[in-house]
Amino acid sequence: MSDLIDVEEALGYEFPIQYSSYDEKDLVLYALGVGAGTDPADTSELQYVYENASQGFKALPTFGVAPALKLIFEMAKRGQKAPGLNYGFDRILHGEQYTEVTQPLPPSAKLSHKVKIKNIYDKGRHAVVVTEIQSFDEAERLLVTNEISTFVRGAGGWGGERGPSTEWNAPPDRAPDAMATEKVGTNQALLYRLSGDVNPLHVDPAVARAFGFEKPILHGLCTFGYAARHVIKHFSKNDSRFFKSIRTRFSDIVFPGETLVTEMWKESDARTLFQCKIKERNRIVISNAATELYPEIPGSAGPNDEIAANRKRSREQK
Amino acid sequence: MSDLIDVEEALGYEFPIQYSSYDEKDLVLYALGVGAGTDPADTSELQYVYENASQGFKALPTFGVAPALKLIFEMAKRGQKAPGLNYGFDRILHGEQYTEVTQPLPPSAKLSHKVKIKNIYDKGRHAVVVTEIQSFDEAERLLVTNEISTFVRGAGGWGGERGPSTEWNAPPDRAPDAMATEKVGTNQALLYRLSGDVNPLHVDPAVARAFGFEKPILHGLCTFGYAARHVIKHFSKNDSRFFKSIRTRFSDIVFPGETLVTEMWKESDARTLFQCKIKERNRIVISNAATELYPEIPGSAGPNDEIAANRKRSREQK
Repeated sequence: MSDLIDVEEALGYEFPIQYSSYDEKDLVLYALGVGAGTDPADTSELQYVYENASQGFKALPTFGVAPALKLIFEMAKRGQKAPGLNYGFDRILHGEQYTEVTQPLPPSAKLSHKVKIKNIYDKGRHAVVVTEIQSFDEAERLLVTNEISTFVRGAGGWGGERGPSTEWNAPPDRAPDAMATEKVGTNQALLYRLSGDVNPLHVDPAVARAFGFEKPILHGLCTFGYAARHVIKHFSKNDSRFFKSIRTRFSDIVFPGETLVTEMWKESDARTLFQCKIKERNRIVISNAATELYPEIPGSAGPNDEIAANRKRSREQK
Repeated sequence: MSDLIDVEEALGYEFPIQYSSYDEKDLVLYALGVGAGTDPADTSELQYVYENASQGFKALPTFGVAPALKLIFEMAKRGQKAPGLNYGFDRILHGEQYTEVTQPLPPSAKLSHKVKIKNIYDKGRHAVVVTEIQSFDEAERLLVTNEISTFVRGAGGWGGERGPSTEWNAPPDRAPDAMATEKVGTNQALLYRLSGDVNPLHVDPAVARAFGFEKPILHGLCTFGYAARHVIKHFSKNDSRFFKSIRTRFSDIVFPGETLVTEMWKESDARTLFQCKIKERNRIVISNAATELYPEIPGSAGPNDEIAANRKRSREQK
């Protein structure tokens, strides 16, 4: 173990069930936060940013990660920490993200969350902590599963398991099947953080400098939302309800105002590989990335026993 | 009277006291909605968009109009209408606006609102209805006074009082003392409406066409917020707490994505005259406009008797 991470204490730890909710306004705010509705020539995205859109209002599937991140910051603010994880936001960066939606997200929901420290890896000098958050609706049905891999600076070196190397989802050796180019707004991090990811690294010049960056950087999950929109537009019949999952590695930083280029390769009807580059610096910022689609729009899952029992207990205690 | 307006019934009508609240996130969302934080080279606006800004977090004074507009739409949704005003949102445009803050707006507040139909004017074919909304904090102190002049298409012609002509605040015959040029975001109306002004005219292409516009137009109050920011930056020692009032006439429409040019003339230490043009079309979109400053940052006003008595009654009834 290191001073910062006690693997024995932390690994496998499950928090008490957590609660939160969202509504249409949260969905719109998130969609604007990841750039939906910015192109005035494209009214197809009104479905994500206007609650009375004529084509029907829909949640962007990657919204599924927003309540999880919001929860993490709210729990931190309340002092709810996993035992054995003795570090703050001043040394973490988002490393990888997997988000899977079990069914299309409803326009509003009261959520229950199971939060678990799923994996801890020793990368030498640094460490990676994987937190799993499963979010359920009021009928105890699984809506979203998130796996958030956090890179913890200077927390490795206890001689622990190194974990899998990220060699999946390498793009094929041919030109992309589709490309999307979009400028990220100069105020995009300010807007994205209103969805709950309030790490000051993305807004506070002094915090960004202390991290070694010349200025605040964009949230990896903001880029993630842009990329998912691009893939949905090209490979999901522009119907977000087919969307199943997205896996990404945040391989480099993005500054608000830069131009994102998403390169996409169709691997099968179900899978699209992609990567994101910054046009101005020709750097790959999202790599080893893929989305999956469902063959049909999925129906609801059945209720989860543990969540149902917990809710029943909580009702009885009232 | 016209079919649409019964002056005798409507004029002077006071609604029951209304309630609402706002918090830091609402202030940030509003500030982003009126373009604060968009220029990455200018970190001075972090004070409006980042709740932990090193220079201290402040409300933009023009936020004072947002709870009033939000209230109007919420009241309409609840079916709370003034007697004698028999028209919907499908025939109204915002004509003029006066907003006065009595003291700097706190970062969060529980508000009480006095809403009154203050004036009704017959402009010939059309009519103008002036609604006054006074907003008080929890200690019953006046925070904001708004006068919202609504232009009601086709509702005039009953031979009523024409009202004052807007000849005030004409700019002097000399070059402006200061100018600000700023591009309005292509998604700005989508963002601004999250502060509560949800008129579909600003987002729904079909509604905009029915109004005779080629596409959705920007909220007049969004332009208003941009202009106030410009004046504050040039003539308020960049300290928004000196800000007292702003009066504007919305003389033409703005489309999201256009470039706003605010021309300012310092009339005295206390008063600045201004107008806004659209660079691409060389049209004046805000005219007859002025801001006033307090000579010193004001303290709190005393409690308002009527609001205090109402709150006391409401507490006793519980």
